[in-house]
Amino acid sequence: MQTTIRIIGIDPGLRRTGWGIIETLGNSLRFVASGTVTSDGDKDLASRLCELHDGLADVVHGFQPHEAAVEQTFVNKDATATLKLGQARGIAMLVPARAGLRVAEYAPNAVKKAVIGVGHGEKQQIHMMLKVLMPKAEFKGNDAADALAIAICHAHNRQAITSRLAALAG
Amino acid sequence: MQTTIRIIGIDPGLRRTGWGIIETLGNSLRFVASGTVTSDGDKDLASRLCELHDGLADVVHGFQPHEAAVEQTFVNKDATATLKLGQARGIAMLVPARAGLRVAEYAPNAVKKAVIGVGHGEKQQIHMMLKVLMPKAEFKGNDAADALAIAICHAHNRQAITSRLAALAG
Repeated sequence: MQTTIRIIGIDPGLRRTGWGIIETLGNSLRFVASGTVTSDGDKDLASRLCELHDGLADVVHGFQPHEAAVEQTFVNKDATATLKLGQARGIAMLVPARAGLRVAEYAPNAVKKAVIGVGHGEKQQIHMMLKVLMPKAEFKGNDAADALAIAICHAHNRQAITSRLAALAG
Repeated sequence: MQTTIRIIGIDPGLRRTGWGIIETLGNSLRFVASGTVTSDGDKDLASRLCELHDGLADVVHGFQPHEAAVEQTFVNKDATATLKLGQARGIAMLVPARAGLRVAEYAPNAVKKAVIGVGHGEKQQIHMMLKVLMPKAEFKGNDAADALAIAICHAHNRQAITSRLAALAG
């Protein structure tokens, strides 16, 4: 018997952390909710991290996902930006882990490949394919869209792993 | 009337996060405790961040400091290392902030200057000066020593700010 699995995808960022919740049953996907947790740029860093923590914790407790997936941060050349992203990413991984969820990580290429079939592409293509894969999907802005794409990537990968295990079991 | 202020200094790192607790009353410093919270390198990142969170939360709840200080991470050229440090640093700032503490940040140079009088120096000099400033100080390893140095740096700086405000007031 197959079970519905509820997945939260998270696209971490200090100013804006996107989140998207979907359900997967076998090969089918269903949109549940999406949104963005923001932090106030006028506040000090510790307060901003608290805002991200509390916002994400509300989402996790409200929607009770079973598994989580977070994008593997693109390490660019700006060390200060990388550090900021790292701090937000620490919170994005901590919150679901503390709630008892397994947290998978996916590279940006893997996420794009899961949604648009290739490892590169424009934001607009991701938005379009989200609507194809989940016609009822609603999302405001790139962060929530990316978070939904991360959740879909996890749905595909966990499904592939489950199928392989089933084949092995015979 | 002067009040004793208990300060926690934190030196964040994914593998080892040092912490040091001191008390300051006027110009005097008193050692309270120090230690290191470690995470298991064989576990996944989310679990390791949980370990750091839970270990630091135990320290904060156990010693009930009034204020916190965290070292401003040195941004080196290795982006992967910077990202790891950023994730640990996010947790190191979140834990005291969630407990209601103000979290100050100090650059490594400022920390060294507060302890050894100049903005550069060897680890050994820091260890020696910690013993001069707080004869009863106990610390195992560089991370706990650095954390105590960060706490001392905050004690000096908050004192300087308080004195300036008092002079202005009258």
